[in-house]
Amino acid sequence: MLPVAHIMSKLIMLFSCMFAVPAVVSVVYRDQTLENFLLAAVAGLAIGLFMWAATRRYEAELKPRDGFILVVTLWVGLAATSAMPFMLHDPELSFTDAFFESISALTTNGATVLSSLDSLPPAINFWRHFMQWLGGMGIIVLAVAILPMFGVGGMQIYKAEMPGPMKDAKLAPRIAQAAKSLWLLYCVFTLLCILALKAAGMDWFDALCHGLSTVALGGFSTKDASVGHFDSLSIEMIIAGFTLISGLNYATHFYALRQKSLRPYRADSEAVAVLAVIFGSILMLSAFLWWREIYTFGAALRHVSFNVISIATDSGFASADYAQWPIFVPLWMMFLSCFTASSGSVGGGIKMIRTLILFRQAQRETTQLLHPRAVLPLKVNGRALPNSVAFSVLGFIFVYVMSIIVLTFVMIASGLDFMTSFSAVISCINNTGPGLGQVGPAANYAGLTDFQTWVCALAMLLGRLELFTLLILFTPAFWRK
Amino acid sequence: MLPVAHIMSKLIMLFSCMFAVPAVVSVVYRDQTLENFLLAAVAGLAIGLFMWAATRRYEAELKPRDGFILVVTLWVGLAATSAMPFMLHDPELSFTDAFFESISALTTNGATVLSSLDSLPPAINFWRHFMQWLGGMGIIVLAVAILPMFGVGGMQIYKAEMPGPMKDAKLAPRIAQAAKSLWLLYCVFTLLCILALKAAGMDWFDALCHGLSTVALGGFSTKDASVGHFDSLSIEMIIAGFTLISGLNYATHFYALRQKSLRPYRADSEAVAVLAVIFGSILMLSAFLWWREIYTFGAALRHVSFNVISIATDSGFASADYAQWPIFVPLWMMFLSCFTASSGSVGGGIKMIRTLILFRQAQRETTQLLHPRAVLPLKVNGRALPNSVAFSVLGFIFVYVMSIIVLTFVMIASGLDFMTSFSAVISCINNTGPGLGQVGPAANYAGLTDFQTWVCALAMLLGRLELFTLLILFTPAFWRK
Ligand SMILES: [K+]
Ligand SMILES: [K+]
Repeated sequence: MLPVAHIMSKLIMLFSCMFAVPAVVSVVYRDQTLENFLLAAVAGLAIGLFMWAATRRYEAELKPRDGFILVVTLWVGLAATSAMPFMLHDPELSFTDAFFESISALTTNGATVLSSLDSLPPAINFWRHFMQWLGGMGIIVLAVAILPMFGVGGMQIYKAEMPGPMKDAKLAPRIAQAAKSLWLLYCVFTLLCILALKAAGMDWFDALCHGLSTVALGGFSTKDASVGHFDSLSIEMIIAGFTLISGLNYATHFYALRQKSLRPYRADSEAVAVLAVIFGSILMLSAFLWWREIYTFGAALRHVSFNVISIATDSGFASADYAQWPIFVPLWMMFLSCFTASSGSVGGGIKMIRTLILFRQAQRETTQLLHPRAVLPLKVNGRALPNSVAFSVLGFIFVYVMSIIVLTFVMIASGLDFMTSFSAVISCINNTGPGLGQVGPAANYAGLTDFQTWVCALAMLLGRLELFTLLILFTPAFWRK
Repeated sequence: MLPVAHIMSKLIMLFSCMFAVPAVVSVVYRDQTLENFLLAAVAGLAIGLFMWAATRRYEAELKPRDGFILVVTLWVGLAATSAMPFMLHDPELSFTDAFFESISALTTNGATVLSSLDSLPPAINFWRHFMQWLGGMGIIVLAVAILPMFGVGGMQIYKAEMPGPMKDAKLAPRIAQAAKSLWLLYCVFTLLCILALKAAGMDWFDALCHGLSTVALGGFSTKDASVGHFDSLSIEMIIAGFTLISGLNYATHFYALRQKSLRPYRADSEAVAVLAVIFGSILMLSAFLWWREIYTFGAALRHVSFNVISIATDSGFASADYAQWPIFVPLWMMFLSCFTASSGSVGGGIKMIRTLILFRQAQRETTQLLHPRAVLPLKVNGRALPNSVAFSVLGFIFVYVMSIIVLTFVMIASGLDFMTSFSAVISCINNTGPGLGQVGPAANYAGLTDFQTWVCALAMLLGRLELFTLLILFTPAFWRK
């Protein structure tokens, strides 16, 4: 534990320096929140320094087991640190709500307990978006480098695909190298998105905030009405485009750019499936809304495209209160949010690769019934998968479904209705953002009790850490010597 | 196909003779439905005879592939045959509704589209219950002998456990031998149940009908208010007791009786898990209703015990309108109905053995993360399972969940609300009977459109034939030479 605390202390100090960015925003906009960020930075640095001094003697190379503890405590610790400016700004805000807002930002969930976003001080609002962006950076490294290394939920198949020239190097430099390549991409996408949003008519502040939360698939907006506020087709298209990019595997982007070719996308059967599922769903749902005479076909296509891309990739922006559409449509979108995002992306949920593996397994099972003695390989992306990977994936999905069921029952037992409970848990575990019912796209999570808020926070962390990284800490075997 | 049709023809003729039983009831009660049953019998015999004559030249030993076709067409064909008396009795009844009632009876689902059950002619009402009992006989053989032979959903682990002395004999006599032993048990249980219900105060007709549908885990009642009509603790206890018996593996009952010992139950980790889940849930839900001040603890225990046992084993009797309880309780009961019944029982759903296998797999996965290089066996009932069985089970559960999702979306798209759609599909695929919403325990399925009724009928058959037996017919590979 102590070597973990030592690394934590450094990371908390590093993270506390990030308060400088909203502090600059505060100075520019003179919104009188500067001292909140400075105080938070000082507090963060002081805590970090104290931890660092107390654990200096224990500096050591981490064991694999420590990696699980580090990832979990890091997310919780940084969320607590990030919550400080919220609490300093609004003393009425409970720690529960401040922590929820922070963990929702850092996991790029995007559920919010704050209302009247339009009148929040700019620096506070910027901090929400900036946290999502930082969270997105962490998630890419987690998804592309760390979880495959842990072997969580079958992701060991990506072990060999970590970008960068140092595949066989030692662990720490290898992760650092991968992170550098991926972060460069992430920054470039963010910059392009911000500039495009400005060109499409947003002011600099809104463009900056929405650019950060779009590329992070975060879903935070500076407006209560989310992207619907701007009512601009070009803004919707820009956000949808960058959302799709961030919903695909960043390693695939890396190879495509290095090879200056689209071939890596075509060769990535996961990317093909993601796009097929999204565009197939858009066509089906647009036709459905048109058939039900909710919109003209053109309007249906516009609204469905934006909201489906946003929810399916677990970004969570809304351009319309889609909870008012016939329930088939929002439920289908919720269904997509569970499995559509690509592995190695910033999206959440089961991920498309696991869905494909599961699907192939069901096909194999049918063939096996007809040919009981045949030995059939499980092929994905043209490669036969070892049984261990398939078992990991199947175990992952079981735990995923069980987590949804158990947490939904907990929410229902606490007094919520079924649809709110179910959709809130699904939205949180997939890191989507809006649910249905009381937590729909036109509402927020402020109406929940403290207990329910903590359950949602747990679900977010559980989903973001791909379940096993968190759950393993609660097994007796983990703590056995 | 033609050898299958030949066997079908014999089975239809045999089944048509069963119309003699309700005909006798009709004579005893002089309810003027005699001619309906005689006409149905003649029609059934004529169709069977015609088929028999037309396919006589094709008499042959069945290939394994033909087995799948036989099982599916048999269930559909017998349901169509059984529907005749309903249509002859009430010319207003559509074929859709008559077929639904029959397939609901034969799959021991117990959902009904008939209301005013209390005033139905006795012979018609008896026929409903008798069909469930006949369906139950078919299911036991299907579950203990045929599905393990097909290897559907991992049930090949029971291949070696078929009761009877003829394990190594040829297929047909082997199934016949197993069926004889199991049916004897089934008949004895039914007889005991009928006598006990009579002793507890039912009249002979109600005792007979409820005895048949209890042991079949059917859930049909002669009363609109189901078992609640009698408001008798002893009747509830008798029905709950025999429901539990039929929710356990009949092969285990067979060995326990032959060894005159309870040891086979204790050695059957599935039976232990079924009882633990049921009694654990009863305690939890009783405490919940008591805490919410819906009932005194005693009344809560009585109502919860009966309804939980009934729904968890997929029997479907109701002694109270549990849809009025806080939604946590009926949802938990619905959750139990998905997995609690034992394999080799008359219950439906995933079955406890698959749940245990899935659970062990998730445990193994956690251990594997901590010890990436260890080779860990998957143990259930003290035996290591081959990977193929685990894969079958996992494939089964994936197809089960996907079927629920797809059919629920179909129901929602047809215009139903979410809760009715979702609970109707779950109830039908598990062969439970009552759902929630519009198809709750105090309502029935008569309010559905024809299309929705057919979707429910499909779900029943899908669940009863353990998904793969039916779905495999829709794969191109099945029809390839
Ligand atoms: K999000
Ligand atoms: K039933």
